[in-house]
Amino acid sequence: MSDFDLDIDDLTARDWEGETDAEPVRFALVGLGWWTREQAIPAMVDADYAEPTVLVSGSPEKAEDVAADLDTVTATLDYDEYADGDATDDYDAVYVCTPNALHPEHVEAAADHGKAVLCEKPLAADLEGAETAVDACRSADVPLMVAYRVLTSPLARRARELVRDGAIGEVVSVLGHMSDTILDSAGPDSWRLDPELSGGTTINDIGIYPLSTMRFVLDADPRAVQATTTAAQEAFEGVDEHTAFTLEFSDSLLAACTASHSAEVVSSLRFVGTEGELTLEGPFFPDSEKTLRLSTGDTESEFRPDTANQMREEFDYFANHLQRDEPFEPDGETGLVDMRLIEALYESAESGERVEVDA
Amino acid sequence: MSDFDLDIDDLTARDWEGETDAEPVRFALVGLGWWTREQAIPAMVDADYAEPTVLVSGSPEKAEDVAADLDTVTATLDYDEYADGDATDDYDAVYVCTPNALHPEHVEAAADHGKAVLCEKPLAADLEGAETAVDACRSADVPLMVAYRVLTSPLARRARELVRDGAIGEVVSVLGHMSDTILDSAGPDSWRLDPELSGGTTINDIGIYPLSTMRFVLDADPRAVQATTTAAQEAFEGVDEHTAFTLEFSDSLLAACTASHSAEVVSSLRFVGTEGELTLEGPFFPDSEKTLRLSTGDTESEFRPDTANQMREEFDYFANHLQRDEPFEPDGETGLVDMRLIEALYESAESGERVEVDA
Repeated sequence: MSDFDLDIDDLTARDWEGETDAEPVRFALVGLGWWTREQAIPAMVDADYAEPTVLVSGSPEKAEDVAADLDTVTATLDYDEYADGDATDDYDAVYVCTPNALHPEHVEAAADHGKAVLCEKPLAADLEGAETAVDACRSADVPLMVAYRVLTSPLARRARELVRDGAIGEVVSVLGHMSDTILDSAGPDSWRLDPELSGGTTINDIGIYPLSTMRFVLDADPRAVQATTTAAQEAFEGVDEHTAFTLEFSDSLLAACTASHSAEVVSSLRFVGTEGELTLEGPFFPDSEKTLRLSTGDTESEFRPDTANQMREEFDYFANHLQRDEPFEPDGETGLVDMRLIEALYESAESGERVEVDA
Repeated sequence: MSDFDLDIDDLTARDWEGETDAEPVRFALVGLGWWTREQAIPAMVDADYAEPTVLVSGSPEKAEDVAADLDTVTATLDYDEYADGDATDDYDAVYVCTPNALHPEHVEAAADHGKAVLCEKPLAADLEGAETAVDACRSADVPLMVAYRVLTSPLARRARELVRDGAIGEVVSVLGHMSDTILDSAGPDSWRLDPELSGGTTINDIGIYPLSTMRFVLDADPRAVQATTTAAQEAFEGVDEHTAFTLEFSDSLLAACTASHSAEVVSSLRFVGTEGELTLEGPFFPDSEKTLRLSTGDTESEFRPDTANQMREEFDYFANHLQRDEPFEPDGETGLVDMRLIEALYESAESGERVEVDA
């Protein structure tokens, strides 16, 4: 077996970056909720190839408040003004970060205006909405990326290379976990707890991270799923607070995941193969410490790279690809596959039965 | 929150050990397969409170061969001689390590002879057999321990204390994994691959480790299960080579596991709580390196104790308890709960449906 020497620099490098003389991509940020304000804006301000120029919100006051701290912003719009095409000269691309059920209409508007789209995951609250969004971008011939920031991160990209190169042999088992404390971060009134707006609370919002990242690393899609969901706290009545699910990729590749919206903020993803094991600690949070462990036979390596904020990397990945007119990986089709799988997971949780998926 | 200072010595200490002047417990080893010869005998020779004195095998030549290297052995028997009560003066206790389906008859014979029993896990190939074994020991009033060596190990016992003491808050998610390469260790002709003799190959033989250990650490039993099993290699035709399963303990506690008989020899068990995370690396193999990681808020600790061989600890735990006439924890009732859960897991894998268990 060949050597898989890992260099710590590989775990911070932008393997996707290309030279460009283009001006920064100017973004309209659609939706100014907790995530946009606390995570997306600071990351975009810090980015090399992207800058926020237009803010779109249902609340003009909120938009003005946020704009006051941002010297690149040239316009604030409400949703009707955005839909009507106001200030389209002020932005090149749109970052959609609204409740999931509203993604499709905002993506459609962007497509109508001929703007490139970075849409938060999941693509929509249901498969039909996701198809609407993808179709709109395809018809208008505008680029659509789904905001799987993890897939633009060096940790996930290097993990995929290691697996592809056979560092742990054939992958046999995968274990994933993600948890946070949503009542503390987004609060009990968050749309994430409203099934109409979210389409699902825990699988949809965070279970999607181990799901999409393992699909990316394995370059494979599950053929069947099983899921269990539960809720204990009153704020989660009628939605899923905790989940455990399994994914059947093939006769020799199975995965199991847990996710919770009411636990310590931790995440992990572990691949066990015929010749070793590869573990990512903290892969799914923008700012968490990251660790990569690789053990093959008698060799064990551990890396704790000082990685960049994932949201910044995601914005730069998207913008740098737009500037160079290059295709990106987390595209609409990838987002649709996850939507089919998420629908199947919720169906399984509801029926208690294994659900086959033609992903 | 109080401090959970862990001392490395806690991870090697025998918290169960009691003083005794008694002679070592003399064991009849019933079944001289790969595990008994390569794992059990060296461990028992090394033990403080146990010694092998009688060897029982279907092959007199094998028994003589093995006995030739052991100066404590005073008798070798075939299965009929053992059942008939030959040489009962030469042993105090019986270690049953035959194919699962044969456990009950050997346990019954031991009970008839009034001998204490240490029976390998799972208790039998099916629930009925397990009940036969437990009933026989109960009627004869002989002690029965199921050989969950992990539950006698300092790593699992200290993990249970940490969880009990609230070191990670309320446990919300558990992730477990165990894999080995059975075709290399036990070989393709092993009874483990014969469903009649084993009652199941991967869930039964190794999936049981994360299952029983998390039940022990959590002091809780699942109320429902889901499982998927697959087989890819020809040697596993008609049995399970790989598995992924979920366990539903309560509305706020779910677990997910993977296990494979055709992967790198690795294992892990991870508990995520409302205030931290506790991870055991390598918990399920007798000789593997062990690591315990505990993270709570901003504090992260990692311990790599130089733990003793688990089989030696198990034999000493059992023997030391017998010498002092003290009850032990991995008893017949614990074994029966796992048998009910394993039956439910295989039923779920067969039907594709969630199965409720009155464990």
